[in-house]
Amino acid sequence: MATAPKTTRGSARREQILRSAEKVIGEKGFSAASIAEITGDAKTALGTFYIYFGSKEEVFRELLDEMGHLTRRVMTDAVAGAPDRLEAERRGLLAFLRFVAERPSLYSIVEQARFVDQEAYRNYFSRFAAAYSVQLERAEAAGHVRPGNAEVRAWALMGIARSLGDRFGLAEEQGDLEAVADAAFDMIRDGLAP
Amino acid sequence: MATAPKTTRGSARREQILRSAEKVIGEKGFSAASIAEITGDAKTALGTFYIYFGSKEEVFRELLDEMGHLTRRVMTDAVAGAPDRLEAERRGLLAFLRFVAERPSLYSIVEQARFVDQEAYRNYFSRFAAAYSVQLERAEAAGHVRPGNAEVRAWALMGIARSLGDRFGLAEEQGDLEAVADAAFDMIRDGLAP
Repeated sequence: MATAPKTTRGSARREQILRSAEKVIGEKGFSAASIAEITGDAKTALGTFYIYFGSKEEVFRELLDEMGHLTRRVMTDAVAGAPDRLEAERRGLLAFLRFVAERPSLYSIVEQARFVDQEAYRNYFSRFAAAYSVQLERAEAAGHVRPGNAEVRAWALMGIARSLGDRFGLAEEQGDLEAVADAAFDMIRDGLAP
Repeated sequence: MATAPKTTRGSARREQILRSAEKVIGEKGFSAASIAEITGDAKTALGTFYIYFGSKEEVFRELLDEMGHLTRRVMTDAVAGAPDRLEAERRGLLAFLRFVAERPSLYSIVEQARFVDQEAYRNYFSRFAAAYSVQLERAEAAGHVRPGNAEVRAWALMGIARSLGDRFGLAEEQGDLEAVADAAFDMIRDGLAP
């Protein structure tokens, strides 16, 4: 169990270790990243790590949880005020691409989870998909989207976002993320049929 | 460089090591998988590995190439005879989901490549996307799909396949993959707009 720091200074040190863990694990991968490297980057003693975290696995799971919370917040903020589900899809996709571009290491941590902690990985996406499905079902009931299988659609839409995040959000030259989101949304809204 | 075996027996032994590498790396991950474990699974001496492969990285890249060839063949076979691009999309998606269900370790190897060999990973999907874009552009020219950004569409469609492969193809209880493919294709064809 991670220990909550008792002082403001402790809290700042814990946060610094977390940010260094995000950076080192995000860049080098979980296996290659060492605790010594994380504390080195955080400019703190190796032993300090263990005041706040039990293991590298534990700090990893905390980063994954953090990514979940952040992504939900980014998406919620982005779609707030959208007049309907379709416009929410467009805004959400663009916000996700921008988020990936801004925080590439957190994105990498989610993808690493598949191999570091398979159960946490599955839970991560299953929770998103469940919440997404509820939104799609509500939109269907309100007549804002065509009837369809909400779970399959949720996973398909998440797949679009992840794939475009991989290709365009993480690219060194990101180009115009708004144009990417618009082109993908065009297909999401109207499909491929002529 | 991998050495081509000179005899039928050598060829069979090399193939056995490759299959064991697929199994062990697919299940345990590249870092955790040891050459000793691979040769143990292949029921051959550790030194035999080095007759055919220079390193674990080399056998990994060969498995990745193999996955690329296999996927292309599976998709080509699946869409052969499809009357148009839309029907090809439906058949291709279903074939991909079935392939993931049949060969989960090869799927895992492709996803691992992101961390084992980033350049190989990017090339893997960029090559698929490039070929996919050409198909979509031809279909657009033939009036089989609506005009749109072929590259973005290609990555979006690959993302749908990967995400559904992850959720339904790799699931212990696969359920009805044809129903999953049909539900996703419904959205690909006609979009979400009511």
